[in-house]
Amino acid sequence: MTDAKDQNEAIRQLLAGIKGFRARYYERRPDSMRQLVTEGQHPEVLMIGCSDSRVDPALLTQAEPGELFVVRNVANLVPPYQPDGSYHGTSAAIEYAVKVLKVSHVIVLGHAQCGGIQGLIRLRTGQATDDDFVSPWVSIAGPACDPYIAGTSEEASQGDIDRLQQFPDVVERAAVRASVENLMTFPFVRERVEAGTLSLHGWWFDLETGDLWSIDPQTKIFLPVE
Amino acid sequence: MTDAKDQNEAIRQLLAGIKGFRARYYERRPDSMRQLVTEGQHPEVLMIGCSDSRVDPALLTQAEPGELFVVRNVANLVPPYQPDGSYHGTSAAIEYAVKVLKVSHVIVLGHAQCGGIQGLIRLRTGQATDDDFVSPWVSIAGPACDPYIAGTSEEASQGDIDRLQQFPDVVERAAVRASVENLMTFPFVRERVEAGTLSLHGWWFDLETGDLWSIDPQTKIFLPVE
Amino acid sequence: MTDAKDQNEAIRQLLAGIKGFRARYYERRPDSMRQLVTEGQHPEVLMIGCSDSRVDPALLTQAEPGELFVVRNVANLVPPYQPDGSYHGTSAAIEYAVKVLKVSHVIVLGHAQCGGIQGLIRLRTGQATDDDFVSPWVSIAGPACDPYIAGTSEEASQGDIDRLQQFPDVVERAAVRASVENLMTFPFVRERVEAGTLSLHGWWFDLETGDLWSIDPQTKIFLPVE
Amino acid sequence: MTDAKDQNEAIRQLLAGIKGFRARYYERRPDSMRQLVTEGQHPEVLMIGCSDSRVDPALLTQAEPGELFVVRNVANLVPPYQPDGSYHGTSAAIEYAVKVLKVSHVIVLGHAQCGGIQGLIRLRTGQATDDDFVSPWVSIAGPACDPYIAGTSEEASQGDIDRLQQFPDVVERAAVRASVENLMTFPFVRERVEAGTLSLHGWWFDLETGDLWSIDPQTKIFLPVE
Repeated sequence: MTDAKDQNEAIRQLLAGIKGFRARYYERRPDSMRQLVTEGQHPEVLMIGCSDSRVDPALLTQAEPGELFVVRNVANLVPPYQPDGSYHGTSAAIEYAVKVLKVSHVIVLGHAQCGGIQGLIRLRTGQATDDDFVSPWVSIAGPACDPYIAGTSEEASQGDIDRLQQFPDVVERAAVRASVENLMTFPFVRERVEAGTLSLHGWWFDLETGDLWSIDPQTKIFLPVE
Repeated sequence: MTDAKDQNEAIRQLLAGIKGFRARYYERRPDSMRQLVTEGQHPEVLMIGCSDSRVDPALLTQAEPGELFVVRNVANLVPPYQPDGSYHGTSAAIEYAVKVLKVSHVIVLGHAQCGGIQGLIRLRTGQATDDDFVSPWVSIAGPACDPYIAGTSEEASQGDIDRLQQFPDVVERAAVRASVENLMTFPFVRERVEAGTLSLHGWWFDLETGDLWSIDPQTKIFLPVE
Repeated sequence: MTDAKDQNEAIRQLLAGIKGFRARYYERRPDSMRQLVTEGQHPEVLMIGCSDSRVDPALLTQAEPGELFVVRNVANLVPPYQPDGSYHGTSAAIEYAVKVLKVSHVIVLGHAQCGGIQGLIRLRTGQATDDDFVSPWVSIAGPACDPYIAGTSEEASQGDIDRLQQFPDVVERAAVRASVENLMTFPFVRERVEAGTLSLHGWWFDLETGDLWSIDPQTKIFLPVE
Repeated sequence: MTDAKDQNEAIRQLLAGIKGFRARYYERRPDSMRQLVTEGQHPEVLMIGCSDSRVDPALLTQAEPGELFVVRNVANLVPPYQPDGSYHGTSAAIEYAVKVLKVSHVIVLGHAQCGGIQGLIRLRTGQATDDDFVSPWVSIAGPACDPYIAGTSEEASQGDIDRLQQFPDVVERAAVRASVENLMTFPFVRERVEAGTLSLHGWWFDLETGDLWSIDPQTKIFLPVE
């Protein structure tokens, strides 16, 4: 948080960035953007990433405009299929990507030092939370967390809490696995996966080392890539 | 959608991109990333953008890791404040950004050629829709659309439909305005806006020309920037 | 200049940069580099720039590999045509670009705060110089400097010296103009310019403001671009 | 070479690139450029590269403005020390980098598919050449080439010629080695190298694979990096 002058500075810099984008993509190399405008987007990949400012899907993968259809929410979570008519932003994006854009891949991208997963750990170990939306939202991955604590959240021992806070990455990866599993509860996802036209991927980016881990298709275990 | 060989190619390219990211941000210029790891993220801006692959907030604003906390959903929508304990991904991200990260700015970033807004126009003009999540989700901005059609969706004339499909940008901008207004229904947002520690912004990016429009704080009208 | 540890650090960072280049141009987006390898280079532009680390032609123009054939020397100078069999690096590059690569443009790119031009001013105002190569080299542009001092270097008044040191940009631009004129002493350049297949350009980049100036084809005067 | 319309297009694109540079380095992230303007340049590295458009030192090493003082000429050659008062562009840049800027490193950067080295091979194998400057210039590296042909250029057998044209990379690397050796003929270079304040490096970039080779300090043999 900054004072009024710096506030304007942040906005001014973003506007300068857009000016640079316009110079680059509309004047310097207009071909690809022009094609994206006249022919529409045809991304092959839906990436479901975290809102965390340090793990930007486009920067991380050096993507150009048009390559990635992106959902970003707290803790890169996929809720289960619930077609109840209420507002489901992530599910709507998955539906649009899979049914309208016909992407070939859905990647759930988790990462180290995830604040949302910290919130989940606090929640499931019985620590006090004080929010309207974060706790209900991250509870999507609650069942994924439970195997890593001895009992229920009410009964979590201090040892459980310490261990989880020391090794939150096991929960982060379990949450990615849970989101990939939730993807399979969407009929239009399952159908395409079983038909071989859609692949699901679970990735976890180690913010501290820059290494990427991914779920091995056979063993379902996270392994470092390369 | 591509055949099996190309499918693997898309993933292989993303992995190569991450290798390049690691070379750049962990080896070539490790200082900023190392600081983001040891001190955590301190973004000044929450940007709520569309999942559309052509309008990536980081690319568009030439942001570096750590600068933007980002939500991306279909049509960059903010639902109204509904603390009912169900899964509200966008609201959770807004809460985290405002209450935990204490951002100074929230920017709703709309854009031209928005597929989600096309869906909304179809929905509100009584055309057939066939989806589980997209229609309910985009209906968040429904009231913003209504002033631009003569009557209710049941009664929409062909002229109404034609006009909206020809000028969807008025609906796109109305939807941004509606999302900014919905932000003010969150008590923790309103409180900070009224205290002067948080600013709300409504932007619309003209994908065809590269121009940015923003809501003028006085008149509430969208004006081209610069 | 740095101590031994930092010395190695500088090299280590360049090697990391090359690793990133390889990831980007050989793995992430291999098409353009592969084409440059199999079909050879076909740049349309020869750019003759300064060795100054702050004015890199590729960075300044956001060029990709293959776009610019580049000469860089102290003060972006073009010597006159002297086919005497001795070592003429800049002339060899001009010959190769024009006769072998058949570029369509030659751009001489000068800039503000040029250390080479500072050396020229010292030289032509009778100040002591102590070097083997810089003074003879920058004397290429000596005649371009003379109109801006009252008399010969031996007679330069303190006022002359002060004025030139205060407004070195007039000399920097005069030197660009002189280099463009020297280009026309090369028969193979003149021939193509007169045939309309080669264009010569004189640019000056204002390092302090980021503005570019270029020689107006009609008046031969430097004018700001845009 | 292009027609008149495309000619203007090439220039227009470079100007758009400069506009993007200005947006990025003067508006989006002005700090580093502002410092380079007020404090002057302090590069640690002089890089002597080829004019070839595919091997740009800044792009290849992902350098930012201010990092590399750069000479670019045909075949990245360093002539021997000849303080005879005539125009020696490369020597002037070396002198400026070493004596004024006090760089810690000089890197000679060669590369595969070097047109200048092809010219040298033609020259030393007695093939016809028809130029004013390229042949004299590349003859700087002539002695480096000779060990790889059986006799003098007059006597080169067709086998010699074929072998060299098939494996020009041995000559490219020999030429880099010769340039590094020529650097040591400059008293102000030798003095600093012997004092341990300046390091010399010979690199060769394999354009076909993206691999970098460098001269091993002990054995003087080129080895792949990593």
